[in-house]
Amino acid sequence: MAADVDTDTTNNLEIMYFPIVINLLMSIGAYFITVRLIPGIKDKFIKANLFGIDMSKTTSDKVPESLGVVTGCSFLITMFLFIPIPFGNSLINGDFPHAEFVELLAALLSICCMLLLGFADDVLDLRWRHKLLLPTIASLPLLMVYYVNFNSTTIVTPKPLRELIGYSIDIGLLYYVYMGMLAVFCTNAINILAGVNGLETGQSVVIAMSIIIFNVVELSGNLPKAHQFSLYFMLPYTATTLALLKHNWYPSKVFVGDTFCYFSGMTFAVVGILGHFSKTTLLFFIPQVFNFLYSSPQLFKLIPCPRHRLPKFNSKIDRMEISTTNFKYSELNILGKIVISLFRMFKLIKWQEKDGWVVTNNLTLINLVLLYCGPLHEAKLTSILIAIQIFFTGVAFVIRYPLASVFYDV
Amino acid sequence: MAADVDTDTTNNLEIMYFPIVINLLMSIGAYFITVRLIPGIKDKFIKANLFGIDMSKTTSDKVPESLGVVTGCSFLITMFLFIPIPFGNSLINGDFPHAEFVELLAALLSICCMLLLGFADDVLDLRWRHKLLLPTIASLPLLMVYYVNFNSTTIVTPKPLRELIGYSIDIGLLYYVYMGMLAVFCTNAINILAGVNGLETGQSVVIAMSIIIFNVVELSGNLPKAHQFSLYFMLPYTATTLALLKHNWYPSKVFVGDTFCYFSGMTFAVVGILGHFSKTTLLFFIPQVFNFLYSSPQLFKLIPCPRHRLPKFNSKIDRMEISTTNFKYSELNILGKIVISLFRMFKLIKWQEKDGWVVTNNLTLINLVLLYCGPLHEAKLTSILIAIQIFFTGVAFVIRYPLASVFYDV
Repeated sequence: MAADVDTDTTNNLEIMYFPIVINLLMSIGAYFITVRLIPGIKDKFIKANLFGIDMSKTTSDKVPESLGVVTGCSFLITMFLFIPIPFGNSLINGDFPHAEFVELLAALLSICCMLLLGFADDVLDLRWRHKLLLPTIASLPLLMVYYVNFNSTTIVTPKPLRELIGYSIDIGLLYYVYMGMLAVFCTNAINILAGVNGLETGQSVVIAMSIIIFNVVELSGNLPKAHQFSLYFMLPYTATTLALLKHNWYPSKVFVGDTFCYFSGMTFAVVGILGHFSKTTLLFFIPQVFNFLYSSPQLFKLIPCPRHRLPKFNSKIDRMEISTTNFKYSELNILGKIVISLFRMFKLIKWQEKDGWVVTNNLTLINLVLLYCGPLHEAKLTSILIAIQIFFTGVAFVIRYPLASVFYDV
Repeated sequence: MAADVDTDTTNNLEIMYFPIVINLLMSIGAYFITVRLIPGIKDKFIKANLFGIDMSKTTSDKVPESLGVVTGCSFLITMFLFIPIPFGNSLINGDFPHAEFVELLAALLSICCMLLLGFADDVLDLRWRHKLLLPTIASLPLLMVYYVNFNSTTIVTPKPLRELIGYSIDIGLLYYVYMGMLAVFCTNAINILAGVNGLETGQSVVIAMSIIIFNVVELSGNLPKAHQFSLYFMLPYTATTLALLKHNWYPSKVFVGDTFCYFSGMTFAVVGILGHFSKTTLLFFIPQVFNFLYSSPQLFKLIPCPRHRLPKFNSKIDRMEISTTNFKYSELNILGKIVISLFRMFKLIKWQEKDGWVVTNNLTLINLVLLYCGPLHEAKLTSILIAIQIFFTGVAFVIRYPLASVFYDV
C-alpha cells in the first residue's frame, strides 16, 4: 500500500512538472530566437518613424522605439505553441479541466489585446487619458470570463477586522473594480518608473523572477494548480524580456516603448488575478508604489510637472544628475504646501530657496537615488535601481511569509 | 402534453433568439460610435506617417491609411461586452457550455492576434512572405484549441467518391493544414481584390451579409448552435465594417489598410471553421477565387507583374481605364505561353501585338470589368464589382442548396 501511494505521488508530481519543464525549454528557445530577431527587425521601426533620441548620450542617433511589440509577439507565439502540452494529455484521460483552459485563453486574450492597444498608442500617440482607458478595455475579457466562470467576489477579512465585519465579506461589483484597477496600476506603474537605459526591462525581469520564486515555493502548497498556471506565463515572459534587456541595457540599442510597459503590466495583473495571489503581486511592486506616491504631487499638479522628469545628463563628466522643477512656494495651494513641507521634513527632496522661488528635484525615485548618491554613471544608476527592486523583493517575502500570519491564517 | 411541448419550444426559441437580439442592438450601437470615431481619430494616422495618396484623384491629399485597426478594436470591444449575455444565463441554470465558451475565446484570440499582426505589418511594412506567415501564426490559437477541444479530422466524402473511399475519411494532420490555409486564403483573397475606393469594405460587407443570411436560414436546421455562434461575430463585424465603408466609399476619406483585410479574412475563416461551414464560406468567395486564379499568371511571375496593378485614372474624362503590362511573347516559358493563349482564346484579356511585343491588361477582376464595360467612373466601377459579388452570393446559394444534394445527403 505504501508503495502504491508513493507511485501515485510521483505520478502527480510528474504530471505537474512535465509541462513546466517543456515550457522552460520552449522559453529558452524563445530567448535565443528573440535575441536574434530584435537586431534584424529594428531598422524597420526607424523607417516607420518609431524611434527616439537618447537624451543621455552625446550622440543623437535614432534609437528604434516600441520593440516591446516584438517580444510580446514572441511571448504569444510561444504560448500558442505551448497550449496543447498541458491540455492535450487531459483530453486522453477524459478529465478535461475546462475552467483552467478557459482561464488560459482569457488571459492570452487580455494580454494580446493590451499588446495591440499599447502598440496603437505608441504609433498613434493617443492622449494621456487613454493610458487609463486602454488597460481597462484590455482587462475586459478577463473580467467577463471571471464573471462567467467564477463570479466569486468574496474576500477573507484580516484577523483584526473580523470582530467587526466577520470572517469574510462579499464586495460584489467592487471586486471587478479592484481587478480593473490592478491592471491599470500595473501597466502605468512600470511606465512611470522609466527614463534610464534598461530600467523598464530590468525592473520587469526582477518582478517576473520574484513571481517565479513565489510560484515555485507555492507549488508544494495547497493551490499548486494556480501557481503552475502562473509559471506557464512567467517563464516565457521572463525569457523574452531578458532578450529585450540584452539590447535595451546601457547603451540602449533599442527602446521598449509604452507597448512593453502595457504588455508587462497586464501579464503581471493577469497571473496575479487568475493565480489568486494579486495581493502578493502588489508586494513585488513596492518600489513602483513608492515611486507613484512620491510622484503624485507632480502627477496631480500640486507642484509644477515639466514634460520630462528624467534625470539630466552631464556630458562633461558622463554622469546623470538630478533634474529640477521650480515654483513660488506662496503660489502652491494648501495641500501642495503640506505635502512639500512633509517631503522636506523627511529629507526626501532637494530644497533651494531664493527670492520666494523654490527649486526642488523632480519627484521620481530615480532623482531621489541621485539626490542621495550624487551624480552617477547611467549604467550604475540603473544597477542601483534594480538592486533596490531586488531588495524589496526580499522585503516582500518577509511580509508575505512571517508577517502575513499576523493578519491571516496561513 | 401538446401545450407543454409548445411552451418548451417557445422557451428554446427565446433562449436562442434573445442573445442574438441583444447582439444586434449592441452592433447598431457600435455602428454609430465607430462612424463618429473614425473622423475624430484619422488625423492621428497622418501624424503617425500612416497615409497614402489616392492615385485615382486629381488632388494629392494625404488619405489616412490602416483605419481597419479602429473598426477591429470596436468589433473586439463589442464582443468583450457581449460575452456575459449568452453565457451568464447558462451559469445560473448549471449547464454551462464549456466547449462553446472555449470556442468563442479562441476565435476572439485569433482575430485579436491577426489585428495586431496586421497593424504591425501596416506600420512596419513587413516583407511579402510575411503575408503568408502572419495569418498562419494568428490561426495557431484556433488550431491549438481545435486540437485540444475536438480533434475531429474526419470529413464526409461526396457521394460519387463513396464507392472508392467509403462514407467518410480521416485526413488527420491535413485537416489542420486545410484550416491554416483557409485563414491564409481568406486574408489574402480580400487583399488582392482591391485598388478602387470602397472595394475592400464593400465586398466584405457582402460576404458578411451572405453569411448572416445563411446563418439565419440554418438557425432552424440541425446545427442551430453553430449558426447562432456565427451570428454573434457577423453582426458586430458587419456593423463596424459598414461604419468604415461610409468613410471609405468614393471619394475615400480613409483607407482601410492590410489591417482590415487581415482582420476580415480571419473573422470569416474563424466563423467558417468553428461554425462547421467552411466549404459554404468559400462559396461566398467565388469572385475572390476567380480573381486569384485570374491573377495567378502574374502572382507566380509567368508574365511580368508591375508593382501596382490597379486601373489607370484618366483625369481628362474622370474615368478609370485598364492598366497594362507588356512582354515579349517569345520570352515567356511554356506554361506562360499556354495560360496566356487560353486567356486569349476565351477573350479574357486585351491583346495588342507589335514587333513581337504584346500588351495585355493586368490580370485582375477590376481590369477585366473595365475591359468589357469600357472606361468607368470610379464609384460606378466599385458598384459593378459589388453587384458581381452579390450576384455570386445568389449563385453560391444555388450551389449550396439545390446542387449540394447531388454530392451530399442534405
